[in-house]
Amino acid sequence: VLIDPERLWSSIMEMAEVGGIPGGGCRRLSLSPEDGAGRDLFSRWCREAGCTVEVDCFGNMFAIRRGRAQPDRLVMTGSHLDTQPVGGRFDGIYGVMAGLEVMRTLNDLDLETACSVAVVNWTNEEGARFSAAQTGSKGFVGQVSLEQAYQLRGVDGVSFGEALDGIGYAGNRGPRPEQLVCYVEAHIEQGPVLEAARKTLGIVESAQAARWYQVDVNGETRHAGTTPAKRRRDAYMAAAAFAVQSRRHLLDMDPGIRFTIGRVELGTNAPNTVPGQASFTIDLRFPGDQVLDRAETVLRDVLSGIDRQEGTRSQLQTTHVVPMVGFDAALTTEIETLAGSNAMRLSSGAMHDACAIAAVAPTAMIFVPSRDGVSHHQDEWLEPRDAASGADLLFRVVEKKANPVL
Amino acid sequence: VLIDPERLWSSIMEMAEVGGIPGGGCRRLSLSPEDGAGRDLFSRWCREAGCTVEVDCFGNMFAIRRGRAQPDRLVMTGSHLDTQPVGGRFDGIYGVMAGLEVMRTLNDLDLETACSVAVVNWTNEEGARFSAAQTGSKGFVGQVSLEQAYQLRGVDGVSFGEALDGIGYAGNRGPRPEQLVCYVEAHIEQGPVLEAARKTLGIVESAQAARWYQVDVNGETRHAGTTPAKRRRDAYMAAAAFAVQSRRHLLDMDPGIRFTIGRVELGTNAPNTVPGQASFTIDLRFPGDQVLDRAETVLRDVLSGIDRQEGTRSQLQTTHVVPMVGFDAALTTEIETLAGSNAMRLSSGAMHDACAIAAVAPTAMIFVPSRDGVSHHQDEWLEPRDAASGADLLFRVVEKKANPVL
Repeated sequence: VLIDPERLWSSIMEMAEVGGIPGGGCRRLSLSPEDGAGRDLFSRWCREAGCTVEVDCFGNMFAIRRGRAQPDRLVMTGSHLDTQPVGGRFDGIYGVMAGLEVMRTLNDLDLETACSVAVVNWTNEEGARFSAAQTGSKGFVGQVSLEQAYQLRGVDGVSFGEALDGIGYAGNRGPRPEQLVCYVEAHIEQGPVLEAARKTLGIVESAQAARWYQVDVNGETRHAGTTPAKRRRDAYMAAAAFAVQSRRHLLDMDPGIRFTIGRVELGTNAPNTVPGQASFTIDLRFPGDQVLDRAETVLRDVLSGIDRQEGTRSQLQTTHVVPMVGFDAALTTEIETLAGSNAMRLSSGAMHDACAIAAVAPTAMIFVPSRDGVSHHQDEWLEPRDAASGADLLFRVVEKKANPVL
Repeated sequence: VLIDPERLWSSIMEMAEVGGIPGGGCRRLSLSPEDGAGRDLFSRWCREAGCTVEVDCFGNMFAIRRGRAQPDRLVMTGSHLDTQPVGGRFDGIYGVMAGLEVMRTLNDLDLETACSVAVVNWTNEEGARFSAAQTGSKGFVGQVSLEQAYQLRGVDGVSFGEALDGIGYAGNRGPRPEQLVCYVEAHIEQGPVLEAARKTLGIVESAQAARWYQVDVNGETRHAGTTPAKRRRDAYMAAAAFAVQSRRHLLDMDPGIRFTIGRVELGTNAPNTVPGQASFTIDLRFPGDQVLDRAETVLRDVLSGIDRQEGTRSQLQTTHVVPMVGFDAALTTEIETLAGSNAMRLSSGAMHDACAIAAVAPTAMIFVPSRDGVSHHQDEWLEPRDAASGADLLFRVVEKKANPVL
């Protein structure tokens, strides 16, 4: 490998100490003092690597290594340094540190590039403090306005704008989207697919489409002791039958569909009462909007059937729709070729800053394995050798894209 | 009919005004000022009917009409005047008012009885304020000690003993269990069985056995977007599959089994997280302990199968066991004969004061229909003609039992 695996790893570990929590995790909520300290450290490392650091009005940080021939054209990489309240050491951080390692390696090899290279730290990717995820990257591409962002209110009551001022990261400089040659983000998978396939590198073709639904089931609240089975309209039994039947039908349709009932609430929720009301959420994801259209039809059909069978009346409402994001096909193929046999194509289950940037520039992502698929948890883990493989691929991609064949 | 239907109905309606709530319901929590006012009204009516009123140390009220030949022998009827927080006008009240109507009818007909007749108002049947149901009747038969009862703490923090003193119903007189010839309690069914069968009178053979279980399912908390179906250990899907499979197997075993999952809690309960933990309660009832033994085996087998299938680890713990209470067979048959063709045998789905008294004296119950099976709700309803039929049967039973053929 061309990059320095130990330098990369020690930077990740040093960053993890900023806002470190017991068990090896991190708590660097966006624009908190800990985030400020993490940003200061990143900024210092970038300047030490000879980069100029620009901060825009969303607090996005761009460390720029100036290109020789086309300095206004940028090959950009990066991710985010903010974490979940009980987060891991790699989610987001890996992509920023891998980008920094690319810079350092370019320096080690004394390589000049034709275009400039930038490493970005996007603000508030997690949406854990300010409940709108990917604020910085969406702001960069114009999907979120400055006014919308500044008015976001944190769970602690502080606004995004106040918090940005508070840590001194409200800037007024930074590149424009038109300058991007491409954007390539490295990230941990946060899922078990690479590990299960024994692959080190994931070439991310797309980010799944996602739909959220709220289902409300109405039955009859009754005495558990006195109401015979055939006289019940049990909202929870209807909800449970819906879960079982829907999963079977959806996985028959396509085993790749991700179907989750993550929140369940019963109206009375008392042991000796037949539930008259049950409400639950559905999180449905697949890399393809048409399959989700068909999946939604299945869900509605199953629900109607259950209403007939159980004597309930149910409503299914769509609460959130995220269309699929397809990454740049040519760029993805280029990366795949550079990656070699240790890579596989896959779709991202989670949303990333790259999903926003894909709207304005050729964009791709590189995944590295998450042990046991764990993320958003202090047990999140990335093997050092896999961290090195991903950063090395990123180096080769960035170096190639920043030196276009003319 | 021998009783006076309008007098019975107007007494029920007048009692309903004490602690009346919007929509026609009642709130007379045990030993509250409203309960005190209801007791005072009942006491006045009983004294006006020529009864002596005794109050024991549990606050149980006994209105006694002295018998001619064997005054120390008592034929007892009654129920309770306390209600749920949002209760109806009939649950408990009906049995006490029907007993009062029996007294008044004995007076109308100028009938003396050989044994004494007593109408009882048991304290804290509901267990809604002091969370131990049937306190008065269990105290009477020695299943609850005076010390245990007095230390019960209400949801408002006041002890049973303090509340009893507060409304002036801590007495020291009352009959002893040995004096009972028999105890017959009239009550609304609180279920839909009589209505569905178009019967006016229920001859209650038994009160169902009941078992409560707590089930804890452990899976893996995972990201809903990144975790493929085959890699999930979804605790809620396991819980849902358990509900569906258990219901099918139990109702195949016996359609009379009452199986309720009334409380469900998920560990994370977030829409975009595969639930790693699910906990739920099971309320299982049947008029027969052996069937419940077999049902419990079914539940454990289903749970093991689901753990294997879903990759979860589950525990099923018994939290509460109520054995079946069989009422007196001879007395039940006598009542059935008096009731005629408009009656049917059934088992009580709920617990009643009669379940406690059955331990010390020949005991039986008479049910009258609840409209749509609704109880513990302001919509609870008993048709006036059904109220009259039940009280008339009660009159004939009490009159017969109080004049034994020697």
